[in-house]
Amino acid sequence: MVIELMKSHASVRDYKEKQLTREEVSELVAAAQHAASSHFVQAYSIVWVTDPEKRKQLGELSRNAQQMEGAGAVFLMCADYNRLKHAGDMQGEAISFDHAENLIVAVTDVGLLAQNLALAAESKGYGICYIGGVRNNMEAISDLVGLPEGVFPVYGLTVGVPNESNEVKPRLPVEAILHENAYDEAKYKTLLPEYDETIQRYYQERSTNQKVATWTQQMATFLRKPRRPDLKGVLAKKGYLFK
Amino acid sequence: MVIELMKSHASVRDYKEKQLTREEVSELVAAAQHAASSHFVQAYSIVWVTDPEKRKQLGELSRNAQQMEGAGAVFLMCADYNRLKHAGDMQGEAISFDHAENLIVAVTDVGLLAQNLALAAESKGYGICYIGGVRNNMEAISDLVGLPEGVFPVYGLTVGVPNESNEVKPRLPVEAILHENAYDEAKYKTLLPEYDETIQRYYQERSTNQKVATWTQQMATFLRKPRRPDLKGVLAKKGYLFK
Repeated sequence: MVIELMKSHASVRDYKEKQLTREEVSELVAAAQHAASSHFVQAYSIVWVTDPEKRKQLGELSRNAQQMEGAGAVFLMCADYNRLKHAGDMQGEAISFDHAENLIVAVTDVGLLAQNLALAAESKGYGICYIGGVRNNMEAISDLVGLPEGVFPVYGLTVGVPNESNEVKPRLPVEAILHENAYDEAKYKTLLPEYDETIQRYYQERSTNQKVATWTQQMATFLRKPRRPDLKGVLAKKGYLFK
Repeated sequence: MVIELMKSHASVRDYKEKQLTREEVSELVAAAQHAASSHFVQAYSIVWVTDPEKRKQLGELSRNAQQMEGAGAVFLMCADYNRLKHAGDMQGEAISFDHAENLIVAVTDVGLLAQNLALAAESKGYGICYIGGVRNNMEAISDLVGLPEGVFPVYGLTVGVPNESNEVKPRLPVEAILHENAYDEAKYKTLLPEYDETIQRYYQERSTNQKVATWTQQMATFLRKPRRPDLKGVLAKKGYLFK
């Protein structure tokens, strides 16, 4: 059943009006927190944006205005070493989080938390969508919800009653993801063209937003330029110096 | 039911001998891949280590010898822009992944995949454990399983039939994680001491490995020194230059 739920996932960007209650949100967050955490640091926080004006601004800053304004709940899923700084202060220790390891730990902790939260919501019939767009204006978003040193939004997550139903997009074949004992690049020569055909057929046949495109075309176009080149500087201001 | 499954999670480090079959592993991976992926880059790979000699070496290199040798399956959960490089080559484009954004995207993609994989396994009665220890000797581990440029193990994941049953560790209270509209540091002054009491009681009362410790003590001790200071250099050699 859990596996069936996972395999039915498709992002939902259009929601009915119903807002999630505090009780529902607490239940989802409590479940999500039970994901593993590296050395139990629990290096995450969630900012639940309920204020209509803030939601409007957040939507504009993350270039997802319609989706964020229309969602049943809007969450900023944040990496957080600020709480750990408080823990250190309580014990008279200055904690360190300026190394590459700390960024990887925080982004990982947020990832495990977020996927549990997403799946818990989907198990209750809600739709969800991750929003990387919050990394477009991370400083302005930090100001909007008062994120201190050590805290930055890795992505947003919208949740709500689906007002649309999207087809599940075919993933890379398992054999392109799974290597046994040794990484095998050679197999991409046949697997990627096959996958391109699968994706092209999917885009042409799906019920809305049909287009002609392959996966390797999309990836090549998307990644030929650096993405979000300002991010390193913003993270450094947050204390993530990546030493 | 999904929420109950999440809330029952406790890491399992001692497994019965049964090995997962290829069919089972494929089913888990296929489910896991249905997690969202940033711009659909699917920037991950899994190396399933079945060779006994490699498993032994991996266990030693990641300082988890007993657990890795005894598990029903051992996975290296890898960030992967190598496959995307192949996609670019097919389209005559050189792709870029040397910015902070790319590292965050890959670690996030791996996180969502991994948590789905973990939960899918738990839904079938298996126990799981994440192993950050693979970041102790990332270069030697990369050599062991032939990870090329663009691919590094973010963590390991062991799966198997539990040979032990651990109590669920109390997480931070929801109100310490969840902020509404604005991040609120002030509340940690009361919430962290309360949580320390909860954790101290848990450590004193659990059935095995009892100890006297609080969460803030553990965090302060763990984080007063930089962790894994060599990691930035290893990531740079893999092409993750964090520009």
